[in-house]
Amino acid sequence: LSAAINGLIRNKELIILGGDFCTNRLYLAPKVDNYLGFWEISGKDLREKFLAHAREMGVQIEQAKVDRVYALGEEFGIMAKDKYYRAKTVILATGVSTAKYLPGEEELLGKGVGYCATCDGPLYRDKKVAVIGYSQEEAEQEANFLAELCSAVYYIPMYQEEPEKLVPKVEIIRKNPKEIAGQEVISKLVFEDGEEIAVDGLFIIREMVPTNQLVPGLELEDGAIKVNRRMETNISGLFAAGDCVGKPYQLAKAVGEGQIAALHAVEYLAKKR
Amino acid sequence: LSAAINGLIRNKELIILGGDFCTNRLYLAPKVDNYLGFWEISGKDLREKFLAHAREMGVQIEQAKVDRVYALGEEFGIMAKDKYYRAKTVILATGVSTAKYLPGEEELLGKGVGYCATCDGPLYRDKKVAVIGYSQEEAEQEANFLAELCSAVYYIPMYQEEPEKLVPKVEIIRKNPKEIAGQEVISKLVFEDGEEIAVDGLFIIREMVPTNQLVPGLELEDGAIKVNRRMETNISGLFAAGDCVGKPYQLAKAVGEGQIAALHAVEYLAKKR
Repeated sequence: LSAAINGLIRNKELIILGGDFCTNRLYLAPKVDNYLGFWEISGKDLREKFLAHAREMGVQIEQAKVDRVYALGEEFGIMAKDKYYRAKTVILATGVSTAKYLPGEEELLGKGVGYCATCDGPLYRDKKVAVIGYSQEEAEQEANFLAELCSAVYYIPMYQEEPEKLVPKVEIIRKNPKEIAGQEVISKLVFEDGEEIAVDGLFIIREMVPTNQLVPGLELEDGAIKVNRRMETNISGLFAAGDCVGKPYQLAKAVGEGQIAALHAVEYLAKKR
Repeated sequence: LSAAINGLIRNKELIILGGDFCTNRLYLAPKVDNYLGFWEISGKDLREKFLAHAREMGVQIEQAKVDRVYALGEEFGIMAKDKYYRAKTVILATGVSTAKYLPGEEELLGKGVGYCATCDGPLYRDKKVAVIGYSQEEAEQEANFLAELCSAVYYIPMYQEEPEKLVPKVEIIRKNPKEIAGQEVISKLVFEDGEEIAVDGLFIIREMVPTNQLVPGLELEDGAIKVNRRMETNISGLFAAGDCVGKPYQLAKAVGEGQIAALHAVEYLAKKR
């Protein structure tokens, strides 16, 4: 939000894309005292202030979970499910995920394990795939998409609710995954009860795409996006700000970094011209 | 202010020292729109919000222009005119000075040219010194202090008002300085009309002490204090935040950096224990 208002003030066309805005952690904070200018304010009210500020300035916000950002040289391509956006510069402000990797997940990433069926599904035409679904609506949509292509689709819901929108071809398995196994490429998904299913592909659909999967080639450091003091990442034209660039996970830091990122993105655009 | 509230929330004893708080540039801004959470607010009102927040949290503010900060290994010694403070850690948030150096000033710094008569005056006992005074009250006090030690004190007021508090021994010269001259050490001060006075020492008293003179040994980069992303300077236990660490000169950046500096200063204190 801070990056957006600063970009807008500098007269840039911009859009905020995201599945969710202003983390739950802010929303749930009973009292925030350490963001200069407000004190004894609830996280809920501060979040409202922030959003109202952005609205007031005319910031365009679109609820669209971004699956991948491609650096294409002169511009960026941004895939968000069925939509494709083009931008001259991108600022990542994705926060941090509290999700834990499954055993085998990191090792087999790109070797059968992925986070975006819409992106990579076509690789598994006529093959067997599984979907581990943390975020219900999206995961069910992804499974249905795969059902059109693949010979078999197993669906493992990680939420309490009954899956509602799955097409009949998708087979629901109510078990807890224990491990993703395979040499070189994925071979099977093992459950806590010892049972296993053989698969050629596995998609894990969480609230957030891990940062290094979001942008191919993005350099990380200690699990956070690596930036310099200008909030530049290792990819030209790509900036990052907030929790996703590392600790401390704090509002004022994020707001300040958003501003720095925006102003250098504006500078970047000026040089491009 | 941001550093102070964050330090206080972490239960640290702290004090803000400074000649002036929240720059004129903020005070004079008719409208500030780019600090997330406030919009269509005047700089004056935003400054009031910031100060009220600090007051509300119980931040101790003392009006005392700091002349020098000494890194003494286990602690810092802070000289502010007639007061001496000791601190385990220091955060510099001195802003930027718009003052321009006089020709010869940088070259002869420490070679007869200085910024704090109270600190260095004793070196000029029974010698001839000049004081170029930009900030009236302080500069006149410094000149009077030198009058007790030196054989001659010339005083060049850089403000419109008549000097009011000078002791008779101080000789007022109403001319514009053009150049500070000398080989190895200062020899004379040259005025715009071509006249000159021979001096052994020269003190320039501005609103702000240049950062590298404020802290001996402090590393700069492009004229700003060099810091890493943790807001650490090259001196252990010494942090910096805001305009003094470089562009962009913006509120949100400064507030964010103040928070980052404070949290790492707190971490530094914890490790010291």
